Amino acid sequence: MPLAHNRTGPLLKKLRTLMSNRKYVPESIQAYIVPSGDAHQSEYIAPCDCRRAFISGFNGSAGTAVITTDKAALWTDGRYFLQAEKQLDENWILMKDGQPNTPTQADWLAKELPVGGKVGVDPCLISAEAWSPLKKNLLSSGHSIIAVPINLIDLVWEDQPPPPLNPLLTLTEKYTGISWQDKIQKIREKMQTKKCGALVISALDEIAYLFNLRGSDIEYNPVFFAYAVVTLDNIFLFIDDQKLDAEVKHHLQLNGTDSAIQVTSYDKVGEVIKNLVDQVEGKFWISPKCSVALTQCVEKTRLFAQTSPVAVMKAVKNDTEIQGMRSAHIKDAVTLCELFSWLEKQIPTGSVTEISAADKLEEIKGEQEDFISLSFATISSTGPNAAIIHYKPTEESDTVLSTDEIYLCDSGGQYKDGTTDVTRTIHFGSPSNHEKECYTRVLKGHIALASIIFPNETKGHMLDTLARTSLWEVGLDYAHGTGHGVGAFLNVHEGPCGISPRVSAAEIPLEVGMILSDEPGYYEDGKFGVRIENLVLVVKAETKFNFRNKGFLTFEPITLVPMQLKMVVPSLLTEKEISWLNEYHTQCREVVGPELKRQGKKEAYEWLMRETQSIG
Amino acid sequence: MPLAHNRTGPLLKKLRTLMSNRKYVPESIQAYIVPSGDAHQSEYIAPCDCRRAFISGFNGSAGTAVITTDKAALWTDGRYFLQAEKQLDENWILMKDGQPNTPTQADWLAKELPVGGKVGVDPCLISAEAWSPLKKNLLSSGHSIIAVPINLIDLVWEDQPPPPLNPLLTLTEKYTGISWQDKIQKIREKMQTKKCGALVISALDEIAYLFNLRGSDIEYNPVFFAYAVVTLDNIFLFIDDQKLDAEVKHHLQLNGTDSAIQVTSYDKVGEVIKNLVDQVEGKFWISPKCSVALTQCVEKTRLFAQTSPVAVMKAVKNDTEIQGMRSAHIKDAVTLCELFSWLEKQIPTGSVTEISAADKLEEIKGEQEDFISLSFATISSTGPNAAIIHYKPTEESDTVLSTDEIYLCDSGGQYKDGTTDVTRTIHFGSPSNHEKECYTRVLKGHIALASIIFPNETKGHMLDTLARTSLWEVGLDYAHGTGHGVGAFLNVHEGPCGISPRVSAAEIPLEVGMILSDEPGYYEDGKFGVRIENLVLVVKAETKFNFRNKGFLTFEPITLVPMQLKMVVPSLLTEKEISWLNEYHTQCREVVGPELKRQGKKEAYEWLMRETQSIG
Repeated sequence: MPLAHNRTGPLLKKLRTLMSNRKYVPESIQAYIVPSGDAHQSEYIAPCDCRRAFISGFNGSAGTAVITTDKAALWTDGRYFLQAEKQLDENWILMKDGQPNTPTQADWLAKELPVGGKVGVDPCLISAEAWSPLKKNLLSSGHSIIAVPINLIDLVWEDQPPPPLNPLLTLTEKYTGISWQDKIQKIREKMQTKKCGALVISALDEIAYLFNLRGSDIEYNPVFFAYAVVTLDNIFLFIDDQKLDAEVKHHLQLNGTDSAIQVTSYDKVGEVIKNLVDQVEGKFWISPKCSVALTQCVEKTRLFAQTSPVAVMKAVKNDTEIQGMRSAHIKDAVTLCELFSWLEKQIPTGSVTEISAADKLEEIKGEQEDFISLSFATISSTGPNAAIIHYKPTEESDTVLSTDEIYLCDSGGQYKDGTTDVTRTIHFGSPSNHEKECYTRVLKGHIALASIIFPNETKGHMLDTLARTSLWEVGLDYAHGTGHGVGAFLNVHEGPCGISPRVSAAEIPLEVGMILSDEPGYYEDGKFGVRIENLVLVVKAETKFNFRNKGFLTFEPITLVPMQLKMVVPSLLTEKEISWLNEYHTQCREVVGPELKRQGKKEAYEWLMRETQSIG
Repeated sequence: MPLAHNRTGPLLKKLRTLMSNRKYVPESIQAYIVPSGDAHQSEYIAPCDCRRAFISGFNGSAGTAVITTDKAALWTDGRYFLQAEKQLDENWILMKDGQPNTPTQADWLAKELPVGGKVGVDPCLISAEAWSPLKKNLLSSGHSIIAVPINLIDLVWEDQPPPPLNPLLTLTEKYTGISWQDKIQKIREKMQTKKCGALVISALDEIAYLFNLRGSDIEYNPVFFAYAVVTLDNIFLFIDDQKLDAEVKHHLQLNGTDSAIQVTSYDKVGEVIKNLVDQVEGKFWISPKCSVALTQCVEKTRLFAQTSPVAVMKAVKNDTEIQGMRSAHIKDAVTLCELFSWLEKQIPTGSVTEISAADKLEEIKGEQEDFISLSFATISSTGPNAAIIHYKPTEESDTVLSTDEIYLCDSGGQYKDGTTDVTRTIHFGSPSNHEKECYTRVLKGHIALASIIFPNETKGHMLDTLARTSLWEVGLDYAHGTGHGVGAFLNVHEGPCGISPRVSAAEIPLEVGMILSDEPGYYEDGKFGVRIENLVLVVKAETKFNFRNKGFLTFEPITLVPMQLKMVVPSLLTEKEISWLNEYHTQCREVVGPELKRQGKKEAYEWLMRETQSIG
């Protein structure tokens, strides 16, 4: 269905009028930047925040629109070039990020703007760490950046959906292992060691984590819109009070004036921070990932701009969370064994498509205890579609699964006890030798990372290469990171740790209790894709020596789903790799087998037993 | 020989008087920082620049002194704790960098200074990239940093040596492969792509490289004191003209008024840059490693603060340089084969010490064609001394070599055709099983890095872990990086590339023609040390596939000295590792063997043949 001709023309015209209307902008601006995110710098956003998609027509997950007085340009990355070309109308220039001739936004603006140009942006939608280099780049070409407090897209967006007001879910210590009061206590101790009198929290998963609450304001992400500020004496929660039903109020101990928590309206956060500056001693801890709007409430000399301590605390799972994550992964393994054994029978009949397979999986997951929702849209992809890393089948692309092609399934669930994320690549017929070689090399990379022993203080970026060397050996590679942090009944992607060649300033060393994905892949454009993903838990390693008492760590898989042996070329594996694989499959049998039996899933049980035989 | 009691007392007293004397400081300062480096941020410095050693008494290669009105503190790292404790007198507090309770300089100053304290530093001796965070940290505790143009240490240093005025050596294209004029041309092209009208060069090795000149102003480093500024039309060389003899003048084509190069007095560099700001269009390219003094000659909006293009060009060796480096390494291998075969005979007699072995090596090297000097002080170390990573034998520590202990020899030479740096670890008796296991694991790490195939655009930090995994497997590690860039008849340590877990902002991807060291190690405090170091050249790899036409690279050893097989536990090596070792030894035989014969070094030749037999 082609988009309406010139759909964005009238919208851009309205927007440009606003850009010089002093009622809405502090001074006339010659360009307006529309970032992808929301005021919490969320990776996934609610419909009311899809401003860049609204103004440009392009609805991929990553992209930035920049509108000048006579041009409009959209920057996005390689995953979305095709989609953006289709979706942008004639008013838009597509800027292909990462292509050698694509200018940066600042470089493009430097050319397009009149001398001394002013570039506006909503300070709520841009993080402090993104603002600074942009400001510097614009300055160096004689232009400047202006915070425009009123969002201009909202003014032209007539049928903008209202912000979600979904009910909250309270989590007891059975799931969290620690009360929110104790979490606050620990955070305050951290604040004191850094001489901070206040901590501003804007990341939605950090707020959900801190208060042992969950929501559903953003699809797949069990979070809710709120801000929080913790001082050494007070706790401020900025939230629409319609969300606070009796149970939530009881959970938060909101007993009128005696409450530890002061509930305040969501949009009062900036005002309260500004007032606190005079009342609170010490620094204000505000993550560089927070918006410029919040950061600028505090003068620079009072700012402590480091990764939020809540993000760090959340990344290290406690025993209850680990137990919950394990339990969720057993249930999740049950659903995948069931899906794959079912697919094995159905695919030869030609009756299953990518979408119907994904639907079937969601249906099966729904039967599991404490299942809440998927943790992301299932990537159910076959043949060439599996080579598209972030593929999600649409009605147009939906393809019948067959015994001739590889099937790649990347799926995950939100359970009340944990979040899962697993990818398996399966051939239901006879894979080619080339497909098998690629799969085996990806598997070697997966095992190399999964079995590595490394010292304390190691950061994730130091481990990424291990997952690639077997592919590099023959001139192959994959164009994504190897691992991301995963929340405990929280976002399927969470920081601050990850395993990637990119180095992030926020990155902290890996430590016992962190849970990350291990997901190398290989994608042959137009042909097939392979990815093998487990979630792995950082655990203490037992080593013969202990250099300078550093202590050594390793990973333990918590995902327990067979890796298809049919795809493996055993001669490419070392003895150690074969042992790892056999031990892993034994663990799948021993842990998931009984649960399949308990749930009476006989066919899936038989499938599991067959798929987990020893090789070598 | 203990240091004189309270030697620094009178010096500190004088210095403190100067700190409040408005004749020397722009305003009264309450603290003065004395960094280690010189005005070119050199790693190794000339005697006239050893200001921190002069004021503190501590003469290790790394350390910063901070003097307040009533205290004096010295920060240094773990390599130097013992030495600093011995050398500092009672006026000094030792600050052990990297220890949990050691405050940063800024934190310590924050406590020691009165409200609104001023901290002075010589802006020539601190780089822009070190100045900014220090300024920020001091500001955040209400203090400020002041550039003090007159160096206060020089004022109290009565017998400060004069700056060296050693003669220069001109290099023809036989050694450099390219004229200085063509280098300037390439640099100007780079400047134009970055819209830069001027490039300021302050790193001594960059100036030596650019003009195809060498010097000897700093021991082991064939460089000379100078600055250079290249604009699109002019070349300014700031140098003491006593250094310019007839040959150098001819080389630089200094023909009076027609010269392409304007020779200007060394200390006029700042003044000339300030004048150029109005005369030159475009930005001023000044590396963040340049001093604050130079950087502040240019207003911020005109500054292009990126790694110098000369550093990048210098890192990528051309064919002539590669040929020269190979040739230097063959000569260098000859000297090591000769040393080790000699040691094998002499050590059992008890007549060789660490120093006499090092002296012998220097003597042997001196016989090789085009040998200029050592490229660093030979680390000739046995037993426990070999566990000290940067050990240099002194008269006090000098130990007799024996057949009971490991001998570690890290040495290098400056030859007119190239620079070498090689470490071999040898046992002249019977190594213990533990020593052999450690050696073998270090060797596995060396081979893992040496044989890795990796895609274009890979940065060195992504490869460091490969050299460690075999040690990590049993809980071992080493506390230094794995590789550094090496100059072609230039500094033995050069940037911007390296192989280390640390990520540097200046780092650029590895590319064909770069030469780096591959030197994993293992050090058991008080017992022994192992390091195996080759220089390796980045070359194109032949791979079965070529993912997205990225192109793949690998390393080729240019150091050709046997690795002691007696120290190897073959059962710990994989088949691939054994093949690599056998092929490497075959290459040593085939390349170095004939040269040993040609030079009539029969015993060394026999030693080489015996030490390079195939295993497995």
